[in-house]
Amino acid sequence: MRAALMYAAGDVRVETVADPALREATDAVVRVVAGCICGSDLWPYASKKPSEHGSRMGHEFVGVVEEVGAEVSGVAVGDFVIAPFVVSDGVCDFCREGLQTSCRHGESWGGPGVDGGQGERVRVPKADGTLVVVPAGFDEKLIPGLLSLSDVMSTGFHAAKMGRVSAGQSVTVIGDGAVGLCGVIAAKLVGATEIILMGRHTDRTDLGLEFGATHVVAERGEEGVARVLELTGGDGTHVVLEAVGLPQAVDTAIRVVRDGGVISRVGVPQDPTIAFGRREFLRNLTLTGGVAPARAYIDELLPLVLDGTIEPGRVFDRTIGIEEVPEGYRAMAAREALKVLVAM
Amino acid sequence: MRAALMYAAGDVRVETVADPALREATDAVVRVVAGCICGSDLWPYASKKPSEHGSRMGHEFVGVVEEVGAEVSGVAVGDFVIAPFVVSDGVCDFCREGLQTSCRHGESWGGPGVDGGQGERVRVPKADGTLVVVPAGFDEKLIPGLLSLSDVMSTGFHAAKMGRVSAGQSVTVIGDGAVGLCGVIAAKLVGATEIILMGRHTDRTDLGLEFGATHVVAERGEEGVARVLELTGGDGTHVVLEAVGLPQAVDTAIRVVRDGGVISRVGVPQDPTIAFGRREFLRNLTLTGGVAPARAYIDELLPLVLDGTIEPGRVFDRTIGIEEVPEGYRAMAAREALKVLVAM
Repeated sequence: MRAALMYAAGDVRVETVADPALREATDAVVRVVAGCICGSDLWPYASKKPSEHGSRMGHEFVGVVEEVGAEVSGVAVGDFVIAPFVVSDGVCDFCREGLQTSCRHGESWGGPGVDGGQGERVRVPKADGTLVVVPAGFDEKLIPGLLSLSDVMSTGFHAAKMGRVSAGQSVTVIGDGAVGLCGVIAAKLVGATEIILMGRHTDRTDLGLEFGATHVVAERGEEGVARVLELTGGDGTHVVLEAVGLPQAVDTAIRVVRDGGVISRVGVPQDPTIAFGRREFLRNLTLTGGVAPARAYIDELLPLVLDGTIEPGRVFDRTIGIEEVPEGYRAMAAREALKVLVAM
Repeated sequence: MRAALMYAAGDVRVETVADPALREATDAVVRVVAGCICGSDLWPYASKKPSEHGSRMGHEFVGVVEEVGAEVSGVAVGDFVIAPFVVSDGVCDFCREGLQTSCRHGESWGGPGVDGGQGERVRVPKADGTLVVVPAGFDEKLIPGLLSLSDVMSTGFHAAKMGRVSAGQSVTVIGDGAVGLCGVIAAKLVGATEIILMGRHTDRTDLGLEFGATHVVAERGEEGVARVLELTGGDGTHVVLEAVGLPQAVDTAIRVVRDGGVISRVGVPQDPTIAFGRREFLRNLTLTGGVAPARAYIDELLPLVLDGTIEPGRVFDRTIGIEEVPEGYRAMAAREALKVLVAM
């Protein structure tokens, strides 16, 4: 079968690899219907050191179950399933608490001995814990939306949940990438009435306005901060969803959040430290967020995708085949594409 | 009247100053019955640059109302009152939300034109918003407990509240000072079942055990972290209340909190940055806490002090008169006294 591997920064190749097979009795094999490229894949695409053996890529996919191990009971051959972006056993204390990203037996797609979602088939470890079955009979047009639950929509929802966004609150979303836009959807879903989207790509922020943003701030840095403060009577918003991860975005978040407010970050932090000292202490700011346990949210979000309440699938603005994955990376890195779907 | 002023690090003097008088119609004048020295007063005591005019000190006091301005309606002459450690108007949006430390018209004791609590009398601005009246007829032995509501007990409670400590959870309290010990009281009050107190002063940690700590860890740094992890099956506790503020304490907090857990800090941060990057992001850690809006908690805590449910007054282990305040600072800085009460 064909699958994408990354060998170094800027060097993604599609190669023929061994077909996956069941290894453990708790495994399933899934034929991927749609995978995608993640904003977080762009970090190694910009910086990965050359390696002789490439890394299998892709941690978001939906597909059809082709085989299940003897101990798998929750999914069956023929089921259409969503794979969250980490493998989890579903039974440990962390999984039961809804923090599957800290599962005691968790694994990562593309990790040692684990397939990636940018490939035609995937062996899914701990299939019962990991996969979510989509009820049969859905419209195929919903596949991008279902795929978004693997990561970006669940991540946006995580940001809102960790930020404890509640009805009537004001929210700033920093970043107009797919996660930021899903953060807008999530903020609206949980009742925010003022949603300020900070981003400078008009096509993306236009989509953000359709998703529920009430204001767009295209300015960055000092000017961006001033604009948000102007929109909020000088106070900032109750919650900031930070979906970038760069130091400047974090700095902006701190400056546009209201006293007593919450910065919920879902952009992978690119700096090991954060300026969060006495000044932030005196303002009673909370810093939260993290890698999203997508598995915890899919049960809640899936019906909303199926009935059209939310349309996170609209963040995909380009569809390619498996052979075009290298071009997909290039387009996303060049910001020509917002999010690229790989149809197998 | 007599009042304490700090002129420089290590230089506290008791001097005769002008008696306070009503200035605004919303002021009250309070005769201080008991004030105290705060752990946070030890920061300037260690580092304040020399100044020609000293700063009035003390931000915690209880006393009797002697005069009220024409617009004061909530407190009357003769009332015994508790002064939270900041002045707040009680009517702005932040005050109504319970974040009086961000009051739109807030003032600080000892700030420009404002008296301090380490003195015989105090002009209290915005008396209706600031002061809490204690119902008449209480036992005078409860005065230390009432005084603790000005700051340390309310601060410990803030730590537990911001940390969202809930029934059945495990909590680590870092620091065996008065705030840390009040954090133990607060953690127990809200239902924590495992409370690990990190501190190395046996007389203090013994009091912590009486307050509800289930374990004491005297080790610090690597050894302290190892010991807490050993007590928690390698996972750490759900919540950490950080009541020190030094970088090592913050580092310990991060290392002894469970994945998905909360670090709630009430020790004034001594470092403007914190190591809270990708590693903490992957663990979904939350950093919260801040300067406590004591005013928000006194209504809830006061009945518990009056009926003896909690005994935070026990953190005071030395009582002095106003003339002995310089010696009180010395004793607290030398860790000879845990917390010094100044009886006027």
